[in-house]
Amino acid sequence: MKIIVAPDSFKGSLSAKEVSVSIETGIKKVFPDANTLLLPLADGGEGTMDTMITATGGEKKSIEVTGPLGESVSASYGILGDRKTCVIEMAEASGLYLVPQDKLDPMKATTYGTGELIKHALDQGYTSFILALGGSATNDGGAGMLQALGARLLDREGKDIGFGGACLADLNTIDATSLDKRIRNCTFLIASDVESPLIGTEGASYVFGPQKGASLRQVQELDANLAHWADNIEKTTGVRLHDLPGAGAAGGIGGAFKAFFDAEMRRGIDVVIKYTKLSEALEGADLLVTGEGQVDVQTAAGKTPMGAAQEANKQGVPTVILAGSVGEGIEKLYPFGVVSVHSIINQPLSLQQSMNRTDELLIYTAEQVIRTYFYHRINDKKRNR
Amino acid sequence: MKIIVAPDSFKGSLSAKEVSVSIETGIKKVFPDANTLLLPLADGGEGTMDTMITATGGEKKSIEVTGPLGESVSASYGILGDRKTCVIEMAEASGLYLVPQDKLDPMKATTYGTGELIKHALDQGYTSFILALGGSATNDGGAGMLQALGARLLDREGKDIGFGGACLADLNTIDATSLDKRIRNCTFLIASDVESPLIGTEGASYVFGPQKGASLRQVQELDANLAHWADNIEKTTGVRLHDLPGAGAAGGIGGAFKAFFDAEMRRGIDVVIKYTKLSEALEGADLLVTGEGQVDVQTAAGKTPMGAAQEANKQGVPTVILAGSVGEGIEKLYPFGVVSVHSIINQPLSLQQSMNRTDELLIYTAEQVIRTYFYHRINDKKRNR
Repeated sequence: MKIIVAPDSFKGSLSAKEVSVSIETGIKKVFPDANTLLLPLADGGEGTMDTMITATGGEKKSIEVTGPLGESVSASYGILGDRKTCVIEMAEASGLYLVPQDKLDPMKATTYGTGELIKHALDQGYTSFILALGGSATNDGGAGMLQALGARLLDREGKDIGFGGACLADLNTIDATSLDKRIRNCTFLIASDVESPLIGTEGASYVFGPQKGASLRQVQELDANLAHWADNIEKTTGVRLHDLPGAGAAGGIGGAFKAFFDAEMRRGIDVVIKYTKLSEALEGADLLVTGEGQVDVQTAAGKTPMGAAQEANKQGVPTVILAGSVGEGIEKLYPFGVVSVHSIINQPLSLQQSMNRTDELLIYTAEQVIRTYFYHRINDKKRNR
Repeated sequence: MKIIVAPDSFKGSLSAKEVSVSIETGIKKVFPDANTLLLPLADGGEGTMDTMITATGGEKKSIEVTGPLGESVSASYGILGDRKTCVIEMAEASGLYLVPQDKLDPMKATTYGTGELIKHALDQGYTSFILALGGSATNDGGAGMLQALGARLLDREGKDIGFGGACLADLNTIDATSLDKRIRNCTFLIASDVESPLIGTEGASYVFGPQKGASLRQVQELDANLAHWADNIEKTTGVRLHDLPGAGAAGGIGGAFKAFFDAEMRRGIDVVIKYTKLSEALEGADLLVTGEGQVDVQTAAGKTPMGAAQEANKQGVPTVILAGSVGEGIEKLYPFGVVSVHSIINQPLSLQQSMNRTDELLIYTAEQVIRTYFYHRINDKKRNR
């Protein structure tokens, strides 16, 4: 019996790797000899870089870069097992988690550090990049990143504009000729599920600004500044980002990639699945067990369990999903070979209690679900003794 | 596909009948055409009478009797669908639920009302009795019941002793010659899981006294009085109840049945299973779904899910158990054809929240479990379309 265990993390509780170990423990309680293959996943958000490094046997480099608010931070980027592909998690240099909740300020936050990570990798000779855009603290349209890579963003007086979404208002000219030439020879695969355009009420500032600390007034100002930024980019490059789906990803850095880089944008989970070779692992498998802390109607929009189930379904491998919390709309997953979705909670528990016990709850639930799904085999085995 | 749905109640939330309807709803979401057969169960405790009446198409009679503390209460007893068998739930006349928590007093509480229920049924000509002993508020050794049926319990002065465990101390002589003669022609099937002897630290007073409101001192007094009571019974009948397993059931009324009646004691769930004809319902079934509010190591000691699983296992029908709360030790159930035990809780919830949502949680969980267990059939169906 071959069972693939490919969950995301249970956020705030266990990493994807820990989750997969717990699930495996539950499976082995039923079938000690089962051929289990652990493939922790991520969907482009937090943990994506680590997941891909682990899955491919790659390595990490840590360097000092400019943090979201201009401070110095230590950030890592990964080299996959192929020794060719760089994976950069934007949150490492420009992430929400680097800023205390009460200091969040998208008016000032810059993507400069993300640009420095790319530059460092260019210096090492890398030309193939994967960018995971989840969890950014910024709303600067990717201006800081471009500055770090040599672009000149000048005000009316010919001086470089400052960091952050607020300073985009000062922009008068973009000089892209000074942009690092090596970028022309690079490919960028952008892992992002965001389909928002750059500006407007569905755009970066309105949809994601508030969770980055923007007030409504600031959201309006940030949106106007991104419109000004898009006008200037159109003038410089001919690329119109205003309404372009995906340009609003990660405070507009998605748009910068589209305008200045050879960039392809793909669903985060699909990028992870491709590089972790889930498809090959699934060959001949009897079942895929995946999961995530929360599973609901959002899951079907492309979170890890959905992406993994779709991949398994291509090969006719059914999927069972384990979750901390199961919300509405899971029937949307059934058409993709999803057998069922089970909460690991096994009695009335608070969120904190559940999170403290995720390990044992996963083991218990995996055991019960495996018993239920394979009961006929358990029974056959008994009879054949 | 034939699925038997035979759960107990989820205490404090849904009756066994409501539970079975919710589970059926979940099953029908997967297999609208499934042949589902609902057989709500009970294990001798609260709801046993109603369950057996419903399952057999019987009826109920309500009469006024003496309550635990001497007050008048309205109590029911049931006539099963065979129109021959009476089912008496002791808690109806002498139950804990009839007394406010702060008024509980096993020193005074009497089983007189239970005797009156039996007497009323005798007056109607019934000779076959099932007694469900769960939930009594009494610790009088069944003295009150015997008094209601004509026995004279006399003190040194030849006067009838009063009600309750305390007054047993006054007993000097039992005159059983005055006991209702019709009882000789009756059979009593006692539904009880209690194996406690009448006296001692494993006996009625020590084990069950405290939950009936007795202080430690009262427990000691009640135990001494039951010893005195047992001495007198031995003198009168030759039956030695002191260490007899089961004599301690329901404040010692179990012993009274054993000494003065043609009584057989059986596990509550087995009595219910016999009269609800679960065995016949299971013929040719693919699966039994049962459940209870709490499932843990105690369940294996003979609660409803265990009894039902054992019955199903005799016919090779596997059992899935749904529970509000799953505790330790459920692996003890596996040898009895139990596939798995699933909690219906699908996210962090308080006990109160869970109880308010038992209905939808049961529907959801039944659907997921049925999908998991029968997934190959779902798939086959799709392929054959």
